[in-house]
Parts: sequence; C-alpha cells; structure tokens
Amino acid sequence: MTTRPNLNIVPFISVDNMMRLVLHLGVERVLTELAAEIERDFRRWPLFDKTPRVASHSDVGVIELMPTSDGEMYGFKYVNGHPKNMREGLQTVTAFGLLADVNTGYPVLLSEMTILTALRTAAMSALAAKWLAPKGAACMALIGNGAQAEFQALAFQAVCGIAEVRLYDLDPAATRKCAANLRGTGLKVTACASAEEAILGAQIITTVTADKQYATILTDNMVGNGVHINAVGGDCPGKTELHRDILLRSDIYVEYPPQTRIEGEIQQLAPDHPVKELWQVMTGQIAGRADARAITLFDSVGFAIEDFSALRYVHGKLQTLPKSLAFSADLDMIADPDEPRDLYGMLLRKKAALVA
Amino acid sequence: MTTRPNLNIVPFISVDNMMRLVLHLGVERVLTELAAEIERDFRRWPLFDKTPRVASHSDVGVIELMPTSDGEMYGFKYVNGHPKNMREGLQTVTAFGLLADVNTGYPVLLSEMTILTALRTAAMSALAAKWLAPKGAACMALIGNGAQAEFQALAFQAVCGIAEVRLYDLDPAATRKCAANLRGTGLKVTACASAEEAILGAQIITTVTADKQYATILTDNMVGNGVHINAVGGDCPGKTELHRDILLRSDIYVEYPPQTRIEGEIQQLAPDHPVKELWQVMTGQIAGRADARAITLFDSVGFAIEDFSALRYVHGKLQTLPKSLAFSADLDMIADPDEPRDLYGMLLRKKAALVA
Repeated sequence: MTTRPNLNIVPFISVDNMMRLVLHLGVERVLTELAAEIERDFRRWPLFDKTPRVASHSDVGVIELMPTSDGEMYGFKYVNGHPKNMREGLQTVTAFGLLADVNTGYPVLLSEMTILTALRTAAMSALAAKWLAPKGAACMALIGNGAQAEFQALAFQAVCGIAEVRLYDLDPAATRKCAANLRGTGLKVTACASAEEAILGAQIITTVTADKQYATILTDNMVGNGVHINAVGGDCPGKTELHRDILLRSDIYVEYPPQTRIEGEIQQLAPDHPVKELWQVMTGQIAGRADARAITLFDSVGFAIEDFSALRYVHGKLQTLPKSLAFSADLDMIADPDEPRDLYGMLLRKKAALVA
Repeated sequence: MTTRPNLNIVPFISVDNMMRLVLHLGVERVLTELAAEIERDFRRWPLFDKTPRVASHSDVGVIELMPTSDGEMYGFKYVNGHPKNMREGLQTVTAFGLLADVNTGYPVLLSEMTILTALRTAAMSALAAKWLAPKGAACMALIGNGAQAEFQALAFQAVCGIAEVRLYDLDPAATRKCAANLRGTGLKVTACASAEEAILGAQIITTVTADKQYATILTDNMVGNGVHINAVGGDCPGKTELHRDILLRSDIYVEYPPQTRIEGEIQQLAPDHPVKELWQVMTGQIAGRADARAITLFDSVGFAIEDFSALRYVHGKLQTLPKSLAFSADLDMIADPDEPRDLYGMLLRKKAALVA
C-alpha cells in the first residue's frame, strides 16, 4: 500500500479561477482544444457508459444530472434550465461538475461549469459543423444573441474558419451586447433587423434562443438548399425552434438518439424518424454531408460525454500548468480517517482536539 | 426585482466543519433530530419525486447519484461503494451532496456526506426499529464492526433506548476498535466470539458487513421468533447478508421497493414477493409488527429522501446557528454576470481587470 497524501482533498475550480484559466490559455485555444477533446471521445463512443440525463421537472424549470464514464474516469454535471430566471436577474443555465476515479470512486475534480458549459456547447457546435457544413462556409447567421451567442461565434471562427456572423435577436439590446463583445475578434459582425435578413448569404444558420415554447425561428421557405443548421436552443421537452417541415427536408444528425428524441427538435417527429449519430460520421462508419445541395441539421441538445471531455480537459490543464498559477483550491471534501473502518474514531479525535 | 447579493456563492460544509457541527450539537442529538427529520419526510412520501439511484458499475465498485425533490427543494447525493478500498487505506463509501432551490435551480448548499451518510443511515435504522422492533427491546446484536457500527449503536441508544450492544466481526481488531470507541457512552458493550454468541438475548439484530458477496451472516436456525432484523449491509446487486430462508419467515419492510428489489436482501426473492413500505407504517396506512412472535426485517439500502432530509437538516442548522461558528465556507461556484445574458462580457471584464 502506497501512502497517498491528502486523500481528503478535492481540487476545486471556482468561477473566478475558471475565468483566469480560460483567459490564461486564450478563449480561441480553449475552444479549439475542447473541440479536439470532444472529437477524441466521440471516436471512442461505444466505450462510454451512456444514459439519458436524469431530469427533475417543475413548473418553472428543470434540474438535471448528466453522468457518464469511460471505465477509467467518471464524470457528471449538475445543470438547471430556468428560462424565467433571466427576468429575475439570474442565469437561465448554471452548472457545476465533478470528475472521479472509477477505480476508487474518489472525486478528483470539482469545477464550476456555467462558463465551461458555454465553451463546450460552442465547441461541440463547431465540431459538428466541421464535419457537416458545406465546404468553404465563411458566413454564419446567429439567431438568438443571449449568453451562448459570443461563444458560438468564436468557436465557429476558431474551428471552422467563419469570417462573418450575422446577428439577430427579438431584443435589439441583446444584439448590441453581442456585437460589442465581438469587437476586435477579427470577425465581421452584421446586426440584422430580422431572421430573414440574418440568413442572407449564410452557409451556416445557428439558432440559439432561450424561451421555452414551440417556437418557429425558422420557417420552411427561409431555408435554402446547401445550408447547415446548428439548432442549439431546442433542448428540452416543449422547447423547439424550427418548423417541422424543415426537419423533414434535412439530414438530421444527433448526439445520443434516446435523449435527443425527448429533448431535441425531433421531438416534433415520429419516434422512428431516421437520424444519424454524429460519432459515426467521425469514425467513418457513416457518411456526413451527401452533396452541396443537402440541408444538414445538427439537432444539438448537449450530452454527458461532452461535459466529461470538458472536465477531463481542465483536469489535464491543472496537471500540466505550473501549480503557482493556482487555478484550483483545495476542498476538504472526503473523510479520511487514519484507519478506514474508524470513521467514528475520527470524530472522537476531533472532539479531543477541540477540547485541548 | 429584489437585489440578491452574492448570487455566485454556495455555502460548503467541509469534512472538518461537519465534524465541528456534529460535535457542537452532540452526536446523540444529531441522531435523534435526523431520525425525526427523516420521519417527517417519510410521512409526506407521495410528494417526492422518486427514482432508483443512477448507478455506474465497474469491476471494483459503483458510483451512484441519488436525486430527489419535494417540489420546493431538490437534493442529490454522490456516493461510491468500493469494498476493496478498505484494503488500500481508503473509505469503502465516500459521499457528498447538494441542495438546490427548485424555483431557480440555484444550489444553496454543498456538503461532505461521508460522515452525514453514516449518521443518517444509523438514524434511519433506528427509526425503522422504533416502528417495528418488539416493545421494550433493550439488547442489540451488532454484526460487522466497521465504519458504520458505532453510529448504529448510538442511534439505537438515542432513538430506541437500547442499553446493551453485543459485537461481532470476523476481524477481532474491528470489534476492539468499536468497543473502545463506545466506552463512556453508557452502553453496555459485549465483545463476542461468533455471530451465534452475539445474538444471544438480543431483540434486535443489526447486520452491517462490507464484503461484496452473497454472504450468510445469519442462517435460518439462528433467528428466533419475535426479533427485529436490521439488515444494513446488503445494499447492492450481488451483496446480501441473510440466508433466503430467513427472508421467507419475515415480514419485510423496505424504503422504496423498485430500488430495494435490485439492491436489497430481497434480490434473492421473486420480484413480486410481498414487501411493505415503511412510510405507510408511519402514516398509519398499514400495520407494523403484527405480534410479539413476528420476525420483522428492515431491508435497508438507503434512499435519496433520507439524504434529502439530512441535507435539509444541516442546511437548517446553518440558518439558525450563529454565523460566528463558521460551519460553512463560501464557494464561488455560480457564474453571476451583472446582466444574465452577458456571460461572455463577464469574461471580457475579468480580462480587463487582470491587465489593469
């Protein structure tokens, strides 16, 4: 038995430290490396222990747990979705996650994941487009300019070489915020007055709106042949963004069908409507985009493996970056009695120490 | 909109602070109050959102998530079970948990739960015995003297008025540890050389062993009429402690049948073998112990509602005890941009602050 010091300690990445870590590496680099990390994990998809997320619904929102494991590491994310939060000055989505060692069950990392989820969602979108979008796509419509918008724009710039984003949101203030934040990134940013205007000349259309309803951000006649649609905002029961007729014209790619059929745009379709699994495109088992005229649709809902990839990515950075940068703090989270069967004795010794 | 300060902060109870909190209140009081808190929640059982725990199994152990909600609060526990850990100087079971506000999805408490689980498991056992054990039971056999043993002894003393515990473990060192830790508690402690000797004169038999196997801690001829069996250690697939014939002679009470049929002693029985739900005994919907000759068996596996009760209990203590006692620390866990849609802007402002 080797002595392992500080068994009780779990490294914790706070929101502030996550921002410092991301800024230290650079947002573009993080998005690119995250996309690569997710792709590596998608290529070994069959290895993972997969389950649709475990959701607890209420009238105003949902709280979900998203676990997965590759047999060596185990990860899960806690995430809420409360569309009404925004009006109360709160985040619609907040999250944190944990990585653990399958061999011992001991946690090895606790991390904020609100920022990390924003980054991994954008990296996942760009990764899907890398495999599905028409060759040479340079212009993206970005409909919905909320908390996820800038991350999407930057991921598509970093991973797919997008040069222009055309912004539209029901609320012009959101578009102004997004455009201002993207200043100096090298992206050409065009604020548009309607969804119709935003999609002019765009080879990629990203929809990422927040309201929980059967919305119709895009109608069938708006979508021409040859585009790639990145549908991010339709991600829970009762929340969709695309008209059903668009889905019927599209080649639909998903993360994990049992989850997407419940949560994605395809909740509007028959339960046996054919969809393709993105990981199989990456391994070459099935073809991606058929030709220049096809409409490809990534019906994104977010799957546990993406969070696993993101947690392992930041865990890896903690191992390789100088400790002096202090991107994590030590949490005393695991009871560690000197003798494992003597948990109560640990309490007694603490009592003696407090009296002394 | 009211301004809520420190939206980003989640109070965290470390292992050290949990020990300080428990010692401040006193172990006996905590066990008694926890049993009362669990009983209150069991009495409103139908209100809860219930699901069998979500388990990720490997060759050497299991990692589980145990969520539940009463519609106002949401709680979950992360817990591992690795019987081989003990031989490596690690805890077989470690745990932490989280409580969140259903209305916003925001976490309100993160807590160590290795110690808290030991306490709630013992409180639950004693609570079940309060309803099921023969009247005037004063002597308990305690077979398996590992990490959970002292907590069981103290809970049965505090909640059921047990005056004597008779200890047995395959490893005499475990029994010596347990007996030494129970010195000065007022319990009469008798170390026994066999399970047969331990159960002599005991009205309650608690089995709480750790090895993952179909074990036979008790055989049918050892168990006389009129006893209450508190079977704690049979709690996952492939891990049981009692001979099947004992089960067939017993009135079996469980927490949540869909989970117990997978994990409990009753995994040895037909899937439709009749069992009774403990919460219905507490609400008076069904009868408990029939007569003095009945064998009652609490087939304990641990259910999410017990962890929810425990988390809410310590959360309540944080609200009422003086802040100066500092039983929790502030974790910067939730991203809180000034404008909820401006998550990326928060990153930009951090960048500006770091440069300045």
